[in-house]
Amino acid sequence: MPELRKDPIVGRWVIISTERARRPSDFTRPREARRGTACAFCAGREGETPPEVLAFRSDGGLPNTGNWTVRVVPNKFPALRIEGELAPEGEGIFDRMNGIGAHEVVIETPDHNADLAQLTPKQIEGVLWAYRERLVDLQKDPRFRYILIFKNHGADAGASLEHTHSQLIALPIIPLYVAEELNGAREYYRHRQRCVFCDLVRQELASKTRLVAETEDFVTLCPFAPRFPFETWILPKRHGEAFERSTEREYRNLAGAVGDFLRRMNTVLDSPPYNYVIHSSPAGEPDDGSYHWHLEIMPKLTKVAGFEWGTGFYINPTPPEDAARFLRDASASSS
Amino acid sequence: MPELRKDPIVGRWVIISTERARRPSDFTRPREARRGTACAFCAGREGETPPEVLAFRSDGGLPNTGNWTVRVVPNKFPALRIEGELAPEGEGIFDRMNGIGAHEVVIETPDHNADLAQLTPKQIEGVLWAYRERLVDLQKDPRFRYILIFKNHGADAGASLEHTHSQLIALPIIPLYVAEELNGAREYYRHRQRCVFCDLVRQELASKTRLVAETEDFVTLCPFAPRFPFETWILPKRHGEAFERSTEREYRNLAGAVGDFLRRMNTVLDSPPYNYVIHSSPAGEPDDGSYHWHLEIMPKLTKVAGFEWGTGFYINPTPPEDAARFLRDASASSS
Repeated sequence: MPELRKDPIVGRWVIISTERARRPSDFTRPREARRGTACAFCAGREGETPPEVLAFRSDGGLPNTGNWTVRVVPNKFPALRIEGELAPEGEGIFDRMNGIGAHEVVIETPDHNADLAQLTPKQIEGVLWAYRERLVDLQKDPRFRYILIFKNHGADAGASLEHTHSQLIALPIIPLYVAEELNGAREYYRHRQRCVFCDLVRQELASKTRLVAETEDFVTLCPFAPRFPFETWILPKRHGEAFERSTEREYRNLAGAVGDFLRRMNTVLDSPPYNYVIHSSPAGEPDDGSYHWHLEIMPKLTKVAGFEWGTGFYINPTPPEDAARFLRDASASSS
Repeated sequence: MPELRKDPIVGRWVIISTERARRPSDFTRPREARRGTACAFCAGREGETPPEVLAFRSDGGLPNTGNWTVRVVPNKFPALRIEGELAPEGEGIFDRMNGIGAHEVVIETPDHNADLAQLTPKQIEGVLWAYRERLVDLQKDPRFRYILIFKNHGADAGASLEHTHSQLIALPIIPLYVAEELNGAREYYRHRQRCVFCDLVRQELASKTRLVAETEDFVTLCPFAPRFPFETWILPKRHGEAFERSTEREYRNLAGAVGDFLRRMNTVLDSPPYNYVIHSSPAGEPDDGSYHWHLEIMPKLTKVAGFEWGTGFYINPTPPEDAARFLRDASASSS
């Protein structure tokens, strides 16, 4: 059973993922993935994954058969386990609980050789709807306080499988970075009665120096104080706390904005490895007007090193104004 | 001039390091380092670095000449600049200030092909004394609130030069991770009138499950809730808030403990890339008995990915009890 453990000094929780327990030799002999080889996420091999929890099939076919466009399955090696109680307990100065949660994989296309940037806007929209359906379903489980949707693309960004996919982890604790955003936004709201993200979007649309692209419903921009070179956020223009309460038009427009950004990034940075995450209000939070969901994209270009691990400060060698200019000037057509 | 910028939502500061400003092509065409080639850190090439700020020479030779054992020079491409005022200013909802600070390199040996784990205890002790002297000197500058000593070993841990070295960055702000430790330790002390690190050392010495090694003055252990597989801390047994106020015997024994651990790690994990940092009380902090300096070592074995960047949670596939057992059972002789 995986465990959640809390650092007794700073209160940070970590997941000790015993289901993937690793011996030293697992680190020193890296797995070699054969590129371009069909895998368990490919069409026709549905029996090789755990049974699906969601799939979109235009022909109304049976579960775990072919003809799907997007398919969601439990992770075969989950970081957290779905069954059981948290059962928190102490051990001297230490705190632990069972590693209860959900860990699912969103297979974005049955095609092994496509990646998200190459999918049609309609296909990307399907991926976003899959995110939404899984969020709404998992939020019914009262054990889960937060559900993170994220994507690792490329081995250097932590993807262990080549076939394009996103992931979802449901947690029994609101994670630190989300809590910091919720608290920071609430504090700003308390002083000014305005959403900090709405103010940010207004200021960036006025100055344009960090703007990458703008559509009917979304703004793509490089944030003022980015941790990583070419870090980019996509924010809805309409104030909204939760991703899953977006409108149909917003999902359609977000699909366009995501594809547009990924293609610009691939042009400027030669298709780098990247991560993205969706930050959205937890289901149980009061809807007080202070928080604003958004998507954060981080190309993996530099190594995080001793200085960052020791301080929480980040050294970013590319001013976001420069990054935005390169991205703005780039072609967003498929490369 | 580099800039310090603050995220308007979570308050996190980043360094926009304009002195190293990078175009997209700098990321897409990685620098190739020729291995084993003499460099500006080698004996006899002292003129190729900025003038030294400290060096240990047994023969009392002139500055910037040969015959040194440890040498400290300003970083040629500093993340922060030593001259100037902070000059904080606002820009709408954003905050920035000049990137004032110090960035120095501690060259641990004149020998290009040695690494820290292969140095004699006496040589490692010299490196620790160099850390101490630079800390004491830089603490006299009232602009600097915190000085981090850290080491990146190996390209995957962020080292851009092969010749073994540590670094030191003096910051005008107490960084988040240090502030979290100071606050957490102070909170613990307020409730119990005891140092949390002293309690931790006591509990780990009693249980022994996460203990790696023990000497007269130091304990080497895998922490209960580590972010990374095989993460290890070295703590002084004697309560002390600041690294630079250690005794001569403690520096000697710490040199032994660091060398011992690095050799164990190299045996178990086949000489992995790694980072270490020294966490110590900032010079201006009240000495209230709550904080306890220590060294944190993080072998670089896994990729930090979307889940970690999105949550601040870490997934660690190796329980620290397993890591400690492998390290404890390993030979600490030179490999």
